[in-house]
Amino acid sequence: MAIPTKNAVKMLQELRALTADDNGAQRVAFTDTWIKARDWFADQIADLPVEHHRDAAGNNWVTLPGASEKALVFGSHLDSVPNGGWLDGALGVLCGLDVLSRIAKKYEGKPPITIRLVDWADEEGARFGRSLFGSSAFAGTHTIDADRKRADKDGITLEDALAQCNIAMEKIGDAQAEQKNAAAYLELHIEQGPVLEDLGLALGAVTGTKGVERHAITFHGQEAHSGSTPMAVRKDALAAAAKLALEIRTIAKKHPDAVCTMGSVKTFPGIVTAVVGRCEATLDQRDLNADVLAQMYKEAQDASKRFAEEEHCTVEWSRIWAIEPIPFHPELIDFCEAAILETTGKAHRLPSGPLHDAAEVARAGIPTVMMFVQSLKGISHNKIEDTKLDHLALAVDAMEKLAEKTISWIQSR
Amino acid sequence: MAIPTKNAVKMLQELRALTADDNGAQRVAFTDTWIKARDWFADQIADLPVEHHRDAAGNNWVTLPGASEKALVFGSHLDSVPNGGWLDGALGVLCGLDVLSRIAKKYEGKPPITIRLVDWADEEGARFGRSLFGSSAFAGTHTIDADRKRADKDGITLEDALAQCNIAMEKIGDAQAEQKNAAAYLELHIEQGPVLEDLGLALGAVTGTKGVERHAITFHGQEAHSGSTPMAVRKDALAAAAKLALEIRTIAKKHPDAVCTMGSVKTFPGIVTAVVGRCEATLDQRDLNADVLAQMYKEAQDASKRFAEEEHCTVEWSRIWAIEPIPFHPELIDFCEAAILETTGKAHRLPSGPLHDAAEVARAGIPTVMMFVQSLKGISHNKIEDTKLDHLALAVDAMEKLAEKTISWIQSR
Repeated sequence: MAIPTKNAVKMLQELRALTADDNGAQRVAFTDTWIKARDWFADQIADLPVEHHRDAAGNNWVTLPGASEKALVFGSHLDSVPNGGWLDGALGVLCGLDVLSRIAKKYEGKPPITIRLVDWADEEGARFGRSLFGSSAFAGTHTIDADRKRADKDGITLEDALAQCNIAMEKIGDAQAEQKNAAAYLELHIEQGPVLEDLGLALGAVTGTKGVERHAITFHGQEAHSGSTPMAVRKDALAAAAKLALEIRTIAKKHPDAVCTMGSVKTFPGIVTAVVGRCEATLDQRDLNADVLAQMYKEAQDASKRFAEEEHCTVEWSRIWAIEPIPFHPELIDFCEAAILETTGKAHRLPSGPLHDAAEVARAGIPTVMMFVQSLKGISHNKIEDTKLDHLALAVDAMEKLAEKTISWIQSR
Repeated sequence: MAIPTKNAVKMLQELRALTADDNGAQRVAFTDTWIKARDWFADQIADLPVEHHRDAAGNNWVTLPGASEKALVFGSHLDSVPNGGWLDGALGVLCGLDVLSRIAKKYEGKPPITIRLVDWADEEGARFGRSLFGSSAFAGTHTIDADRKRADKDGITLEDALAQCNIAMEKIGDAQAEQKNAAAYLELHIEQGPVLEDLGLALGAVTGTKGVERHAITFHGQEAHSGSTPMAVRKDALAAAAKLALEIRTIAKKHPDAVCTMGSVKTFPGIVTAVVGRCEATLDQRDLNADVLAQMYKEAQDASKRFAEEEHCTVEWSRIWAIEPIPFHPELIDFCEAAILETTGKAHRLPSGPLHDAAEVARAGIPTVMMFVQSLKGISHNKIEDTKLDHLALAVDAMEKLAEKTISWIQSR
């Protein structure tokens, strides 16, 4: 039996030609272009000795059976944001297919353990605002009641869009059956940030996904005429928010990998001739260490109260969303670092600020690690998202080395 | 000939009953309710020995001829903002009528000089964004070319709305003819700020209207992912704007009466998960001293450039509008202060942050002063705008004293 090998970069270029327009990738989950991408993917595996099926949450599973049922799983997602890049998600899936084909060839179709590849459904959540849809169903952290209420901008509900793809909302938890025998999970992704490029490195071992505290913060002062209200008697809600916008940077910089972001500020009445009576801001705080995250959240709250008092305002906080830090598996991180060192001569560890499907897999208790490849200018979710071709080739080689180490580790357990 | 006297407070209450609804005063210029207010005003003067006409810009003139053609002019405006207060503007017109009637009675219909009262057209500019419409036409500072382009939110042009009221846009400058013989101008207005209330004073002598520098300021940074972009490499446009929002207060506080306000901040993309790539802010700076105003403007510009540099951003400024400070007449300010002292036992001088028709009259070279009466909580342009009734009565008495002093002064010149 002649087993063909697959070339990740060549497949990525083909997929781009098929599913991007002048504005970038258009593989939004549960749309025609996404289905087209998945049909194309099915063609790519047709000549491999693999089983292929879709689970109850719409995740695509490819299985190369091995001597043992214990499985090493590669994964990522073919779906993209609208006007997205060619690598975000697709790289991890097609690198997984490339490495799976190399393993199949090396072991003449029968590796010592089972090798699986998953294309998660709707990682991005671009259309319905529900990211990690398929991987959360797999992990059992799905949220059917909340998700039933979701609709896209045209009023089409997530539930109806799923039904169009023959996915029944009430059954998505059945995807947890796929956890069976999963012994390790590996995901390659573009960094989507500037760290590796700034360090001059191609690859990095990801230590985990940062926890997130995301809040809406509203300062209430007193709207007043900008001409007739002396400075000393103002209750300027913008001033309190401005102090916080600066203070969160001091709070973040106490910790090496922490980030704090005020991404939105809205002023009311928001006219040139009135002191701001109400200021609504958002805060996004992330760190890999839960204690650091909790400390930063408390420090920001305390600071906001102090600034409100100083400005004769009041402040209220409302949590938008939060997730705990999800550290990856220590031994797999070591393997990942070693594989990168062997491939490129240099290694680096870094946490992931963005969430990924790997976080959900790790929450399910499956040993997990991710590898990052350098993003040019740190840009993603944009048609200009790019990575050097030689860095992509290094990434696939390093993932193959990581897979070999992981297979041995799984065999030894 | 029996000359009746008019009671300002009683007339104000009548006007409120006629032209306010549950949301406040609705006397927006060039609307039916405004015309109704002016018709009611015509009834109020029907039993006085006065001439009454409308000038080319729609200003309403009432003239009590005196022994001399030299005229003392009282003025303000009957128009209001939508959902406005009962006193803003109407107080000055009806106090003027009250005092005019007292003078007419005192001199048995023939005062030593001519007494005039003007109800300026569209002081507020609420519908077309063009404030001081009638008084600027009187002063000759009108702007026909710019005003031809103005339209309300329904697309009706200012020119068409004027035509409906039999005012021809191209003729409004003819209102300058009313300057003839005008020897002094007096205007009573609510303060619209908290200064007199905080000092426990009923009345204040206004030293002039502050000059205004009004700018749009845009900081350009780099939009970036809030999770994957380390603090140290960010180009956060909001951080630069926040520094400026705080610094303008330091700049203002160097001068006793200066104010600087950032009234609007807009963030782009303005989402919780992105570092702000662009931040648009407005700045409004005011002072009675032109040198102070120029210094504050320069300091804010310099500070914005420094903050942009610190945050690896760029900044651009665009002037929205500016007007020079307009000091009132020194002798009339002295008379105003003396009249207040005689009436209440206490006097105070203060500049006006808001603009008023009096500023346009002063720009025409006519000796001008304003008197302020305390505003409760400094609130105006709102249905809860209010002033104590005994303060209103003191204001009318003080304006009568001011008028007597001004009549003597005009006679002596």
